[in-house]
Amino acid sequence: MNTLGRLLRLTTFGESHGPAMGGILDGLPSGIRIDMADVQHMIDRRRTGRSTLTSQRRETDIPEILSGVNADGITLGTPIGFIFRNTDARSSDYCELEHRYRPGHADYTYDMKYGLRDPRGGGRASARETVNWVMGGALTMQWLRTLGITIEARLTAVGKAGYPSPLAAIMSDPLHGALPFDEATEQAMLGEVERARRDCDSVGGRVSCVMRGLPAGLGDPVFGKLQARLAEAMMSLNAVKGFEYGMGAAAAEARGSEAIDLFAPGFSPAPMRTDRHGGALGGISTGMPVCFNLWFKPTPTISRPLPMPDREGEMLEVTAHGRHDPCVAMRAPVIVEALAALVAGDLLRF
Amino acid sequence: MNTLGRLLRLTTFGESHGPAMGGILDGLPSGIRIDMADVQHMIDRRRTGRSTLTSQRRETDIPEILSGVNADGITLGTPIGFIFRNTDARSSDYCELEHRYRPGHADYTYDMKYGLRDPRGGGRASARETVNWVMGGALTMQWLRTLGITIEARLTAVGKAGYPSPLAAIMSDPLHGALPFDEATEQAMLGEVERARRDCDSVGGRVSCVMRGLPAGLGDPVFGKLQARLAEAMMSLNAVKGFEYGMGAAAAEARGSEAIDLFAPGFSPAPMRTDRHGGALGGISTGMPVCFNLWFKPTPTISRPLPMPDREGEMLEVTAHGRHDPCVAMRAPVIVEALAALVAGDLLRF
Amino acid sequence: MNTLGRLLRLTTFGESHGPAMGGILDGLPSGIRIDMADVQHMIDRRRTGRSTLTSQRRETDIPEILSGVNADGITLGTPIGFIFRNTDARSSDYCELEHRYRPGHADYTYDMKYGLRDPRGGGRASARETVNWVMGGALTMQWLRTLGITIEARLTAVGKAGYPSPLAAIMSDPLHGALPFDEATEQAMLGEVERARRDCDSVGGRVSCVMRGLPAGLGDPVFGKLQARLAEAMMSLNAVKGFEYGMGAAAAEARGSEAIDLFAPGFSPAPMRTDRHGGALGGISTGMPVCFNLWFKPTPTISRPLPMPDREGEMLEVTAHGRHDPCVAMRAPVIVEALAALVAGDLLRF
Amino acid sequence: MNTLGRLLRLTTFGESHGPAMGGILDGLPSGIRIDMADVQHMIDRRRTGRSTLTSQRRETDIPEILSGVNADGITLGTPIGFIFRNTDARSSDYCELEHRYRPGHADYTYDMKYGLRDPRGGGRASARETVNWVMGGALTMQWLRTLGITIEARLTAVGKAGYPSPLAAIMSDPLHGALPFDEATEQAMLGEVERARRDCDSVGGRVSCVMRGLPAGLGDPVFGKLQARLAEAMMSLNAVKGFEYGMGAAAAEARGSEAIDLFAPGFSPAPMRTDRHGGALGGISTGMPVCFNLWFKPTPTISRPLPMPDREGEMLEVTAHGRHDPCVAMRAPVIVEALAALVAGDLLRF
Repeated sequence: MNTLGRLLRLTTFGESHGPAMGGILDGLPSGIRIDMADVQHMIDRRRTGRSTLTSQRRETDIPEILSGVNADGITLGTPIGFIFRNTDARSSDYCELEHRYRPGHADYTYDMKYGLRDPRGGGRASARETVNWVMGGALTMQWLRTLGITIEARLTAVGKAGYPSPLAAIMSDPLHGALPFDEATEQAMLGEVERARRDCDSVGGRVSCVMRGLPAGLGDPVFGKLQARLAEAMMSLNAVKGFEYGMGAAAAEARGSEAIDLFAPGFSPAPMRTDRHGGALGGISTGMPVCFNLWFKPTPTISRPLPMPDREGEMLEVTAHGRHDPCVAMRAPVIVEALAALVAGDLLRF
Repeated sequence: MNTLGRLLRLTTFGESHGPAMGGILDGLPSGIRIDMADVQHMIDRRRTGRSTLTSQRRETDIPEILSGVNADGITLGTPIGFIFRNTDARSSDYCELEHRYRPGHADYTYDMKYGLRDPRGGGRASARETVNWVMGGALTMQWLRTLGITIEARLTAVGKAGYPSPLAAIMSDPLHGALPFDEATEQAMLGEVERARRDCDSVGGRVSCVMRGLPAGLGDPVFGKLQARLAEAMMSLNAVKGFEYGMGAAAAEARGSEAIDLFAPGFSPAPMRTDRHGGALGGISTGMPVCFNLWFKPTPTISRPLPMPDREGEMLEVTAHGRHDPCVAMRAPVIVEALAALVAGDLLRF
Repeated sequence: MNTLGRLLRLTTFGESHGPAMGGILDGLPSGIRIDMADVQHMIDRRRTGRSTLTSQRRETDIPEILSGVNADGITLGTPIGFIFRNTDARSSDYCELEHRYRPGHADYTYDMKYGLRDPRGGGRASARETVNWVMGGALTMQWLRTLGITIEARLTAVGKAGYPSPLAAIMSDPLHGALPFDEATEQAMLGEVERARRDCDSVGGRVSCVMRGLPAGLGDPVFGKLQARLAEAMMSLNAVKGFEYGMGAAAAEARGSEAIDLFAPGFSPAPMRTDRHGGALGGISTGMPVCFNLWFKPTPTISRPLPMPDREGEMLEVTAHGRHDPCVAMRAPVIVEALAALVAGDLLRF
Repeated sequence: MNTLGRLLRLTTFGESHGPAMGGILDGLPSGIRIDMADVQHMIDRRRTGRSTLTSQRRETDIPEILSGVNADGITLGTPIGFIFRNTDARSSDYCELEHRYRPGHADYTYDMKYGLRDPRGGGRASARETVNWVMGGALTMQWLRTLGITIEARLTAVGKAGYPSPLAAIMSDPLHGALPFDEATEQAMLGEVERARRDCDSVGGRVSCVMRGLPAGLGDPVFGKLQARLAEAMMSLNAVKGFEYGMGAAAAEARGSEAIDLFAPGFSPAPMRTDRHGGALGGISTGMPVCFNLWFKPTPTISRPLPMPDREGEMLEVTAHGRHDPCVAMRAPVIVEALAALVAGDLLRF
């Protein structure tokens, strides 16, 4: 199924080298003013071709909104249909691969599931699909900001470089803590990407995200927990191999006395003094920041000859060309923000 | 919502100290022979009170099946209703806490969401709910084993003790690799639990799981990916703070050339030689083992005085008594297996 | 699937001659006081065995509530699990039919779908299932009445006897109009049932229903229209062969000038002067009464020898005994009210 | 929500006078060859402007398929996105109505629900939306015909003219019976439309439909019955005021002995000799023809001055101009076929 969400629902379509990508965002409340410059800004953050470190494919990525917003830019409460034309699809890059299964890609599994696939640019499995998600998330963000909700995601590690424990500052000082930033570490991360590119290789990374301003009470208590919805959404990103929130993996090594958050007297200025729980208890938001980390695998497309089977399992050494990022995590933060916005918006509608 | 799954659906109910727990498993195929001894064995693995290291609550935990299975023990294809009577509920343990919010628990969030809650034993937020999940999973397992599917979960770390990289053996040798086991490590893990208990504290842990025999082609390619469904289900466990599959977090530090799995010529004896991808590519099962890790936080109930607010935020030092495991991860493996079975069964119905 | 509703959801289970019927009502708001005498009264209205004109099966039909309601009878917002024990199941009545398909029953189709079935008392296809629906509806009604919503259904025709156009009074005078009642017609309808019984035959009927107090704005504008949700729910009753709302079938013969409802100046005392539209325009409630009719077929079980095939299509003359109503519509009004309550409650949660 | 179906799902968008209508059909199997001439033929049957008896709006109604079908016209199993540009939208027709609520239209209810609406051409409530449904149904039909399934709907009554009991022939002779046709009755129906038009009025009608070739076993036994799904879909058509299948309303007046269908020995050449049940028993298809009737109200737009309130309830006599059919049922048969195809396709995926 190609739908995310229950009450605020994004349904998408599009093959990477087909005529267009697009989707329908259904369930956004009426009366929200859409600032298209804002929306475009979010889409542009995702766009490829902005540096030598990301894919060289150049799409203008200007959405056409087909419904759901009136002439004054106000949402009608009806579904918002949108499309992005695919204009820079060079399918010839992929001819050689048409009958080959690339390691680490979805070629093989699509064939197993459907019996055929669109080999051009990964078809439906391409990261180009995420332009739809950013569009859906950007529209949703227009609503969330009227509620005082903010969402920020950042690249916090690439390969061996990066920040230790990027959520630590938020966990210990939920009101003022921020994701870490220092120039040296940022340069080190860029260095990792550049080295991978030069080695005709790719490299993984970590993205961290903080959501602020969510009211207490969001999420369902048994199935449909806030963290379950978030994890489900984030694991939709092809390259994501894991998700942790709050203390995350570190909690497995901790004692209970180190892992709980004490309440603040009078629940003020926030319900709890610390945020090791990461914003949800029993699956329901506490009103504290929701913070989480995602780990991305390196893009499986590397510019080296690799043995690739055809449908019969006959092997051939092939070098994939195409235009790919050496580090998919680099472009991911805005996509993570978009998915987080969609999840938050969906929970707010219940 | 209290339902897991789309086509194979488990819907549950029950407060920890109410008359009964129970659920409805809807969508199990007709014609499956249910071996109740097998089902009971799985339920017994979860049961409390088997040692000094887990909660002292003693429930017989014998399910009553009310529908969906005929006199010969064969499923009818109709929904299977079942209940577990709650017999050993000592609510008096909780009186003192009725108007207090325990740190790290769902007391506060339930009150924020519903305006009232059942304070006895955690009510709906209690881990007692998982008896329903094990029942649903055990019934589903009866079907899966007819398809040659096996699921095994194990406790692989407690606090600072445990196995390094428990999935390594499966990733490097998917056909013969197994979750690690050695007596010394097992003793070290038990030692961690025992030390936590003596310290009136609790401790976290890690559970690892391997699913074998899933056919290629399960899972939806965009939203509803196999790993998204798994993560969603696993994050339903209250104490789970994170999920990774295949290489998981380690992928973020890796190069692409180290992270891909090469195909086997003729796709034999398995499609790929290694299983770093963890059994799904593009969200669709490859036919390789699906393997993942979960990190559990320490139970937040520790036998020490803690400041707890009432609804107005007024603080009081209270010591929670109740009967609780010092390490919730210890009883979790069978619950993880049950959830994995429910996810697999749901995907198989599509 | 055995679930009705999206946000307020009733999931049910139970075979007619199994240990119990039961269900889970999930999504009822917290804080609703449940008056069990009221609930039991609604269940009793449905119960069989109250006269010679309905089935002679005698069940006490006292529900056991297992969760979701606290000791003070207040809903917790968590799922309400309930069961009804089956105590008066005389399966011997059905032995002869075990391998036969009764005309007009679901025996054949269950076998086609599932490959096996529970032949005792119709198994899952029995009208006994509706006790679950009445329970779900009765609990929901406790909430609806706090909102000033009332629902009334009545038997308005049996065979050739009955009231013409039972919705006419409501359509022409929405504020004061009521479903018709006169002693002579009621006696004529009872006469039709009695005659059918004496002839070892059965007879159909019509049920009419009026819902008052629904706020304007309920229902989705495209799919999920109020009338679509109502029709879907009502067509779940096995014997229902058709549904009409407002002018219904008569609208097909009418001119537009006769079929529209003019607005009231100032929308007072109600938005429109008449209610030919039946309470919904464009799928969304107008705030006017929602009124509809349902047509029930005669019960297909008649006490006459009929040729019945076995699985191979081999015919035999068999007379069905069992205990059946000659007119299933007689007991239907309370079931219709319950389904209407569930639909209204579900739409109110959006 | 703007989605029909569970596993084969049509999600749509579009305002009548916005840039485009469109939708996403998700869940159509891979490997289906799409004959676009066939699809276009079905769309053309719906199109307006073909005679003086239907609306004068002229749209070319040529869909653009944006995904899900490969260069050879074969479905990929991925979602099919499509759009129809709105080219002949004369919004000026509606200016006068912008702040008025038309009787019998959804203007009032949209405002109640959303607080604002698109007044041009009825916005989202316009019958123009049905072009999306026909597209979804036409694509689905490409699959159904490979399974030997046929669906035929016809206009069988207009106002006082039309065929009596149009399903009678199918019910009594399921293998050879057909919907009635005679020239005189067809002319009489056209006469009713023409008279209504001349009188500046509109008129209702009845559409009948027969689905053949559905395998036995489709539909869920409790909620989600075949007839419930059909009714839900058909009641999505704005003007439909009622639905009956098989004997329908007539069953309410019948005796059981007249209403059942006897089995055929050896279930040959069809399971039953007659089809009074209309193709489903216990909610599950029998393999017999599924036949049903729908009643349409007259279009509420009539070319006469009518008192219309503004948002404050202040009345003014206004004459609606726009371009409207005097009998909406005339264009409905192909839409009914499309909805029936979507329901059948959805049930086939379970």
